[in-house]
Amino acid sequence: MDIYQADKTLVCTSRVPGLKQTSLRILRNKMGNKVVATDPVGVREGNWVFTASGSAARFAAGDFEVLTDLTIAGIIDNWDESAG
Amino acid sequence: MDIYQADKTLVCTSRVPGLKQTSLRILRNKMGNKVVATDPVGVREGNWVFTASGSAARFAAGDFEVLTDLTIAGIIDNWDESAG
Amino acid sequence: MDIYQADKTLVCTSRVPGLKQTSLRILRNKMGNKVVATDPVGVREGNWVFTASGSAARFAAGDFEVLTDLTIAGIIDNWDESAG
Amino acid sequence: MDIYQADKTLVCTSRVPGLKQTSLRILRNKMGNKVVATDPVGVREGNWVFTASGSAARFAAGDFEVLTDLTIAGIIDNWDESAG
Amino acid sequence: MDIYQADKTLVCTSRVPGLKQTSLRILRNKMGNKVVATDPVGVREGNWVFTASGSAARFAAGDFEVLTDLTIAGIIDNWDESAG
Repeated sequence: MDIYQADKTLVCTSRVPGLKQTSLRILRNKMGNKVVATDPVGVREGNWVFTASGSAARFAAGDFEVLTDLTIAGIIDNWDESAG
Repeated sequence: MDIYQADKTLVCTSRVPGLKQTSLRILRNKMGNKVVATDPVGVREGNWVFTASGSAARFAAGDFEVLTDLTIAGIIDNWDESAG
Repeated sequence: MDIYQADKTLVCTSRVPGLKQTSLRILRNKMGNKVVATDPVGVREGNWVFTASGSAARFAAGDFEVLTDLTIAGIIDNWDESAG
Repeated sequence: MDIYQADKTLVCTSRVPGLKQTSLRILRNKMGNKVVATDPVGVREGNWVFTASGSAARFAAGDFEVLTDLTIAGIIDNWDESAG
Repeated sequence: MDIYQADKTLVCTSRVPGLKQTSLRILRNKMGNKVVATDPVGVREGNWVFTASGSAARFAAGDFEVLTDLTIAGIIDNWDESAG
């Protein structure tokens, strides 16, 4: 499971029906690369999170039918990336 | 889910039957690398999109039998890559 | 789906039974990295192709029982990599 | 399966229910990149381990319902990364 | 499927039960990065091999219940990496 920092909510008016009403969040890794994940946890911008990918992402979304390949699995407490 | 900018439609006269009549689109990430995705959304060249990969791609294609590993899941509104 | 240029046929006398009698082809991406894919399309050296990976590769091989993780899904017409 | 060195236990008070009561461990590869894995083996900080990813991670977690995409599969004895 | 050169056998006294009695082999790609794979073929140190990943790895291991994400699928004859 990978580690990202939550960025803004994704604004997306046109999407496939399979994503349903899920909340979509932009995440940023420490290299600055951005990805999009479904968010069943309810994170806030700036939170450090870890994610489940692949088929686990659909399970983690709380609804196996949600067509995602990346889901936020939890918020990491007191993460200090620079301490790595 | 990854973020790409839509490039041209892929011209491909010889392909496996499992891809059926799906529309294929070339996508380009911000590093300039290109991939091919099925497009159930109907994007236009220049649109910024996010994609579902793996088994979710087959679901997202709207037909689980379509043999893709990458499907456009939605168009991102007002994406400013450089603002990243 | 990723884009590769077909290289030589893979010569391999010892392989797992699950690969059956499939044709194996070496592919090379634009960085020069090489991978091996099953080829149900019948490509020729020098063709530019796109591939399906993961579980889709097994379906695309035309036989779900073939133990591959990468299958050539089609030949791209008139691909000009340098035009990217 | 990839090779990592075990780092600290992950402190995470908010996570998806699907992770249940699994132990979460931060792992670090030789480049210093960090990931999060479920730990059914019981490793100690500093151990070198190898991991199963994808759907195998759920099986390896000892409970297919655990929503992980990376699980520690074993501890490597006498690993000398620098000897590589 | 990726191309690696077989390195030493992995010595691992503590591992998850799901790996059963499979032989584990360290592989090294041409960049020198190391991974661990199950070996149903019986390779020798120095052989060049190609691997199946993901769910195909479990099938290729000859026992779908083996919890691996990478399995050696065959030995490549007369591979000359430098000729790439």
